Amino acid sequence: MTHPGDSLRPGEETARLDAPRDAALHFIGRLRTPFATRADCPRQGDPENGPECRVIVDAAFVPALDGIEPFERIELLYWLHEARRDLLRQSPKGDGRTRGTFSLRSPLRPNPIGTSLVRLIRRDGDTLLVRGLDCLDGTPLLDIKPARCDYAVQAPPKPGD
Amino acid sequence: MTHPGDSLRPGEETARLDAPRDAALHFIGRLRTPFATRADCPRQGDPENGPECRVIVDAAFVPALDGIEPFERIELLYWLHEARRDLLRQSPKGDGRTRGTFSLRSPLRPNPIGTSLVRLIRRDGDTLLVRGLDCLDGTPLLDIKPARCDYAVQAPPKPGD
Repeated sequence: MTHPGDSLRPGEETARLDAPRDAALHFIGRLRTPFATRADCPRQGDPENGPECRVIVDAAFVPALDGIEPFERIELLYWLHEARRDLLRQSPKGDGRTRGTFSLRSPLRPNPIGTSLVRLIRRDGDTLLVRGLDCLDGTPLLDIKPARCDYAVQAPPKPGD
Repeated sequence: MTHPGDSLRPGEETARLDAPRDAALHFIGRLRTPFATRADCPRQGDPENGPECRVIVDAAFVPALDGIEPFERIELLYWLHEARRDLLRQSPKGDGRTRGTFSLRSPLRPNPIGTSLVRLIRRDGDTLLVRGLDCLDGTPLLDIKPARCDYAVQAPPKPGD
């Protein structure tokens, strides 16, 4: 990993972390985007005018896509596999001023899980065509959910609802 | 795990999954909510009128909270530790009609990561007081991010922006 984002900048603070072992993830597919390097990635995706990207779901998980087609917006969770995980304070501008990692949407975080709200253009078998991604080509996929705001709860109401 | 959500309902379909091993997570804290069992959890959190809940961050990660105070809304990621992970098709109403897991916001999914947009009431040291959670008391915390819509990118613009 040679991206400049991996080197510490003035004022940045790291944690000494043990190897993570509290829970483990399945990669369930890959995101195909036009962004080959981290420098190519836009800061934030644009669900209206961003480039068309593909969400390719591994064969074992394709049955879980059933019923996704009518949703206009979906939430994607993915693994920012190039990100260092030990930064507690970061200097986004590299100017010595720092802020805590949890007050930034930087990909560098203890659990580098990216979330995006994207526009679903269409489904084509194991593939979803979407707009609004800002991550690297080849990023591992973790989850697909209907967007919160478009979603009507499917299960019967509970006393607390 | 004896919750009825763990048993299969008519028509539900599972995957035969290997043990997950593609990436590993740190639990960085815990969520304290009034919901002691899954039956007590509301279907969706209410950031306006939901009960006050606490996000307690482990000591090692407290420096990463710096700068969070001004955000009105934050995104929380957490680990739905009681959820089975092998369901491809689910029957939310238990009536034999099923839908793919990725077209539902059910907690039962291959990577049971919950996401919530919550209202930040205030920070008190290692603790954030928030409204809008719908998860079990004691749920492990994975990440805290400023809400997308309230967030101004901090780093300098890139050519793709």
